Amino acid sequence: MGLVLADDLLGTGLLRVQREIDAAFDALLPIPDDARAPLVEAMRYATIDGGKRVRPMLLVTVAEMYGASRDAAVRAGSAIEAIHVYSLIHDDLPCMDDDDMRHGKPTLHKKFDEATAVLAGDSLHALAFEVLGGTHVSNDPFIRAELVHALATASGHNGMAGGQVMDMAADKEEFDLHGVTRLQQLKTGALLGAAVEMGAILGKVPADGRAHLRNYARDIGLAFQIADDLLDEEGDEAKAGKALRKDAEQGKATFVSLMGVDAARAQAHALSEQAIGHLSNHGAEADLLRALARFIVERDR
Amino acid sequence: MGLVLADDLLGTGLLRVQREIDAAFDALLPIPDDARAPLVEAMRYATIDGGKRVRPMLLVTVAEMYGASRDAAVRAGSAIEAIHVYSLIHDDLPCMDDDDMRHGKPTLHKKFDEATAVLAGDSLHALAFEVLGGTHVSNDPFIRAELVHALATASGHNGMAGGQVMDMAADKEEFDLHGVTRLQQLKTGALLGAAVEMGAILGKVPADGRAHLRNYARDIGLAFQIADDLLDEEGDEAKAGKALRKDAEQGKATFVSLMGVDAARAQAHALSEQAIGHLSNHGAEADLLRALARFIVERDR
Repeated sequence: MGLVLADDLLGTGLLRVQREIDAAFDALLPIPDDARAPLVEAMRYATIDGGKRVRPMLLVTVAEMYGASRDAAVRAGSAIEAIHVYSLIHDDLPCMDDDDMRHGKPTLHKKFDEATAVLAGDSLHALAFEVLGGTHVSNDPFIRAELVHALATASGHNGMAGGQVMDMAADKEEFDLHGVTRLQQLKTGALLGAAVEMGAILGKVPADGRAHLRNYARDIGLAFQIADDLLDEEGDEAKAGKALRKDAEQGKATFVSLMGVDAARAQAHALSEQAIGHLSNHGAEADLLRALARFIVERDR
Repeated sequence: MGLVLADDLLGTGLLRVQREIDAAFDALLPIPDDARAPLVEAMRYATIDGGKRVRPMLLVTVAEMYGASRDAAVRAGSAIEAIHVYSLIHDDLPCMDDDDMRHGKPTLHKKFDEATAVLAGDSLHALAFEVLGGTHVSNDPFIRAELVHALATASGHNGMAGGQVMDMAADKEEFDLHGVTRLQQLKTGALLGAAVEMGAILGKVPADGRAHLRNYARDIGLAFQIADDLLDEEGDEAKAGKALRKDAEQGKATFVSLMGVDAARAQAHALSEQAIGHLSNHGAEADLLRALARFIVERDR
């Protein structure tokens, strides 16, 4: 993936998850021998060899910390990644952010067409819940229902989709730091939180034993978004694989526009350290989560 | 709703379900006091006082036949209706069927805008699984997971969304009667089948006791679509509340174009009677399903 990683543990871990998630989508999406073939080809184009797989990485790492099966966690990871990918496909549409490039290749509606992009997104959305609701991830129906509920709540109007609506209003509304924080907690924080929550569900961590994991997820979520804003301001479009500096052009309030570059960078690093602090009761089994918290603010794409 | 109903039992039953589903969406969708308000207003616009509610009606009727709680069935009915409504919102988009009117009022992207239509559809999609995955419908996690799996499978690329892709290819591909049947089994049949399946799940009917219900659903699904094709050919746009005769303009193969009006009408009625035949082991508790099978081919919108 060409990422500059300070940490070998994390680099190895991310590459492993990336290969596993690619394999999971390859198995989930055989191309049918009928007129649906272009739809499934589009779903494969968007999911296989895709992004950094941060959400599956979080989910798998937390699940394994608590002794869950890695295979089950990777399958649940493919479900949350399907939700993340569908949201990118729809966000890139001309009526939304109107982006031509994603992960260094043409966006889905550029490669195929808009109708296929809408339907491939919708189909990945459904696939996530097909994976979680069936016996693919777990034979325990309680775990299946809990995973579904956590993911659906984080992705709907009270989570990711709600955050995207706020984001689209951000060039018209005057968001202050509180408003931008709230927006980002929905737009990116909710799904990152769901990744950790789903790992805890698979690991059978009781709900009242998840507070430190939720706090970790909240802090890295915010750090992740501040880092994104910094990359949008200062990053390299070739490395990012997508158009940058669109927020500033549209006059949108971001952490960087509200705080300035230096304070934003300091805040991202402080949140990353604070996230790591929430893991103080864990030993070496949480090292990947610690490395991920550092990576999130140090990445160059 | 202004429907001409031959059957008082069915008319009363449909009106009751319509009121219950409206109330369910009203309760599920309070308008938030932030920038997400237009999104939730759009979700309410699309769901409340909406369509005929055929899918919730099927689900509730089957569930009650087997002794399930009506409240639980109505909640599950709101989930399948949320999926149906999201699919209509996305199908109406300019890049898809490009329709201006639905249920006698402007389509969502006309009333709001395209971005809101994409996101309101996505949010209703997520809401369906939030409703089913949580304890809202059932305290039994097995029932919750089974409901999720049935609905997700029926709505994704191997169901409704796959059928929509085939439908969009229908003006380019030369579908014969077999191809159109397959297309419609996915596009409309899968979700009608899921309605019956979900009712059976709530009623704790074992999987091997559902064959007659599945056969009923398959036959009314096909009858429903042939009736839709006949309405598209012969119907009144004012009553239908949407543009008609688009398939013929686009040269799409339909049951009517392939069979002719008279044979198509005869086939729809034969399927309706065949569907009723599958209920022969049921008594008066299945009268609503029998009335629904007749209504589906006799409706004028």
